[in-house]
Amino acid sequence: VGLLRFLNDVSFNLHLEELLQYVSKAAPKTQLEYDYDGPSMKTSVPGPRSQALTKQLGEIQNVGAVNFFCNYEESRGNYLVDVDNNRMLDVYTQISSIPIGYNHPALLKLMANPNHLSTLVNRPALGILPPENFPDKLTESLLSVSPSGMTRVQTMACGSCSNENAYKAMFIWYRNKERGHNMPSDEDVSTCMINKAPGCPDLSILSFNGGFHGRTMGCLATTHSKAIHKLDVPSFDWPMAPFPRLQYPLEEFTRENAQEEARCLEETEDVIVKWRQKGNPVAGIVIEPIQAEGGDNHASPDFFKGLRNIARKHGCAFHVDEVQTGGGATGKYWAHEHWGMDDPADIVSFSKKLLTGGYYHKDELQPYRIFNTWMGDPSKNLLLAEVLNVIRRENLLEEVTRSGKALLNGLYDLQAQYPGILSRARGQGTFCAIDICDDATRNSILLKARDKGVLLGGCGDRSIRFRPALIFKEYHVHIFLNIFNDVLAEHK
Amino acid sequence: VGLLRFLNDVSFNLHLEELLQYVSKAAPKTQLEYDYDGPSMKTSVPGPRSQALTKQLGEIQNVGAVNFFCNYEESRGNYLVDVDNNRMLDVYTQISSIPIGYNHPALLKLMANPNHLSTLVNRPALGILPPENFPDKLTESLLSVSPSGMTRVQTMACGSCSNENAYKAMFIWYRNKERGHNMPSDEDVSTCMINKAPGCPDLSILSFNGGFHGRTMGCLATTHSKAIHKLDVPSFDWPMAPFPRLQYPLEEFTRENAQEEARCLEETEDVIVKWRQKGNPVAGIVIEPIQAEGGDNHASPDFFKGLRNIARKHGCAFHVDEVQTGGGATGKYWAHEHWGMDDPADIVSFSKKLLTGGYYHKDELQPYRIFNTWMGDPSKNLLLAEVLNVIRRENLLEEVTRSGKALLNGLYDLQAQYPGILSRARGQGTFCAIDICDDATRNSILLKARDKGVLLGGCGDRSIRFRPALIFKEYHVHIFLNIFNDVLAEHK
Repeated sequence: VGLLRFLNDVSFNLHLEELLQYVSKAAPKTQLEYDYDGPSMKTSVPGPRSQALTKQLGEIQNVGAVNFFCNYEESRGNYLVDVDNNRMLDVYTQISSIPIGYNHPALLKLMANPNHLSTLVNRPALGILPPENFPDKLTESLLSVSPSGMTRVQTMACGSCSNENAYKAMFIWYRNKERGHNMPSDEDVSTCMINKAPGCPDLSILSFNGGFHGRTMGCLATTHSKAIHKLDVPSFDWPMAPFPRLQYPLEEFTRENAQEEARCLEETEDVIVKWRQKGNPVAGIVIEPIQAEGGDNHASPDFFKGLRNIARKHGCAFHVDEVQTGGGATGKYWAHEHWGMDDPADIVSFSKKLLTGGYYHKDELQPYRIFNTWMGDPSKNLLLAEVLNVIRRENLLEEVTRSGKALLNGLYDLQAQYPGILSRARGQGTFCAIDICDDATRNSILLKARDKGVLLGGCGDRSIRFRPALIFKEYHVHIFLNIFNDVLAEHK
Repeated sequence: VGLLRFLNDVSFNLHLEELLQYVSKAAPKTQLEYDYDGPSMKTSVPGPRSQALTKQLGEIQNVGAVNFFCNYEESRGNYLVDVDNNRMLDVYTQISSIPIGYNHPALLKLMANPNHLSTLVNRPALGILPPENFPDKLTESLLSVSPSGMTRVQTMACGSCSNENAYKAMFIWYRNKERGHNMPSDEDVSTCMINKAPGCPDLSILSFNGGFHGRTMGCLATTHSKAIHKLDVPSFDWPMAPFPRLQYPLEEFTRENAQEEARCLEETEDVIVKWRQKGNPVAGIVIEPIQAEGGDNHASPDFFKGLRNIARKHGCAFHVDEVQTGGGATGKYWAHEHWGMDDPADIVSFSKKLLTGGYYHKDELQPYRIFNTWMGDPSKNLLLAEVLNVIRRENLLEEVTRSGKALLNGLYDLQAQYPGILSRARGQGTFCAIDICDDATRNSILLKARDKGVLLGGCGDRSIRFRPALIFKEYHVHIFLNIFNDVLAEHK
């Protein structure tokens, strides 16, 4: 109803075609009119309506993680509106998954176009019966932002499925390499049916302390961020290497950080050798360019170059998980582009801001045996193609770089002002974070900020992560910093 | 363009509102006008345009499984139209995932309604920030067809994610039971971070020979249908029990089949005891009511009742995987409803025809720790609610039962006529299958049927499975049987 009212306001009694033209002309003009001018709080959060709905939903499913209920129709741009009519500046964006804000007019226009109805109501089994425009849509969306050296892409439904299938692709590639050809032996075929080697081989994926790669059982064996993710779920005997624990700002601790990274690289290589010796060789290495869920941990391009070389040396595939970092928030489409490498990875997975899950891969990591019923969703590719158009048209990567600098500088200032509370401000683009003195204070700050109209998320033991949409401008940064400052002043 | 032309045909120059009214009035009248009157073949399949597109897509991803490219805009009801303008009666429906045919007017109308634009462009993180209408939408869609004894449901993005998370729920439930409470020990917490017991416990899921439960790594460890699914992917040491290999028609072999089922139940119990003795107890049992991918293998209600009792006796959760069987094709919403049990399962998972993945579960299998970013997609719940309305309004479950009888009787007749080619005709509702004398003949029949305008799928070693949409009427059965008869006559 809210959205309809909004559409009616601007185009009462127009034909759909005319309405579409109107939105089309208006969109490039300015983002401003599709955004609110600031937070507006009517109740503490969750308000009474959210509480009633939480109770209602509690009869149907676990609501332990529900923050509040949203009025998505009334939400606009950087502002999320809740069911109690509270309007919050959203610096968390649905766990970093809303690329260009709420109800972007370009996306509304796209979805209102009757040409796309068929894509919405006829979801195909993409692996067997793709739609006519599928190659073109892939080319215009995902392939138009391919990471360096990658011309092939496989879509999937979510981040976990993307990583699961990327791991499978690496295992199959590794076994083919071991065999010297693609033909499994009779023993491979018979043993795999009962979950035994050599058909189901003893192979592993190496991951890092603090890493997060999803929660399905393969992914979960490479996730090492919080116990709550892993508890009580059987796992694989796969190796974990240390992720560098750097000091910030990075440029002030180059020597110390280089030492820490050298230590981690050395241990990584030791672990690879050790797992090979115990008969469970590492087929692939998976890593985030910035560990997100695990606490926004950065590492230098040199570290990643070193790791890439170790992967090559030991014959392991190198998988860069860009599920949270991908899509522009670091100021580039892919965070790993900041490494400046020609051949940065064998596999790059994505989801969240890309709206569809999936992974790019090298030619040789492309087994026929990666398959499931849906293999993605063309309606999400459609949205993604338009999101990328908006990013280009509105120069959003430049905007992100500019807003990101303002955000990080603001965090440095606050850190200087509140040294007892804040430390380790860090970030790339608007993909920023800061540490709070302890977990209890962190949680109190998150709730107080929310009651003042700023929605944030935590990560790691005691960090706050900033994950605004790509349309988060410098003036949004200042709105945020002012409110954050107020919250900190109360905690001083 | 095709769909737009179609919409224009019926409503040239109407306002959107009027168009919607038109569709709304027309829909209940009859399905006929939204269906074609029969197959129409212009080329062999894949035709030249499909071949060109396959080559184009081959530059981007593996196309080893692509059959042909589709014109979804021109497809209607039970007929899939390809890019070479071939129109095929679809008895496979995107691997059993299209519930009420292509471009159903009720779904077109729903997606053309501007009230739903916001749901299409603002995908929330459902676990933390659900939309206002989420409890109502769940109630009106999934909960309106809850299996017996189940009042709780969790949505997920796809079938594999549904099963992965159902397994996790069973593991967590089992560990809580073992501990006697929900609080993990310090040792649980510290060991889980490095993939070790007791935090990541040695627990297993028991599955069945010939079962299929998905292809992510947890699911894959319970899948035992074809080697190609499992080859080269590491697995868990989890037990597999025999699924009954029955003789058809079931009612003619009750004594032999009862013996076979008793044998399988006995072995299942032995396996559970054995795995407990070796320190890897069975936390849950997962089974399909009809093994689909594995060859359309049926078992009797008595078998499932016996299995349910074994699960209770040994303290294992009982998970019925209805990803392929659910959604009405057996003549009931859930195939397991044919068992006639009050308390058939602890968990029932779904996807495909339900348009969203997810699982129903008992209260006690509801851990806070089941979580991911999206946890489903409200735009799919929206479609599902309307699909269920159509099923009720058009009495589609009754239609399925009627069409299914005609289909199975037709298969019995053909089997009598071609005893050298056909055997073991079987089915429930339109969820039918028949065996072919050998794999090569099966594949030749599938291709010939396709060239004559009938799209079918294989399953198991040498079966053909029939998976029409719920709008497949008796006259569609006859169109199919006539063409199938022609194909068989050529093979005689």
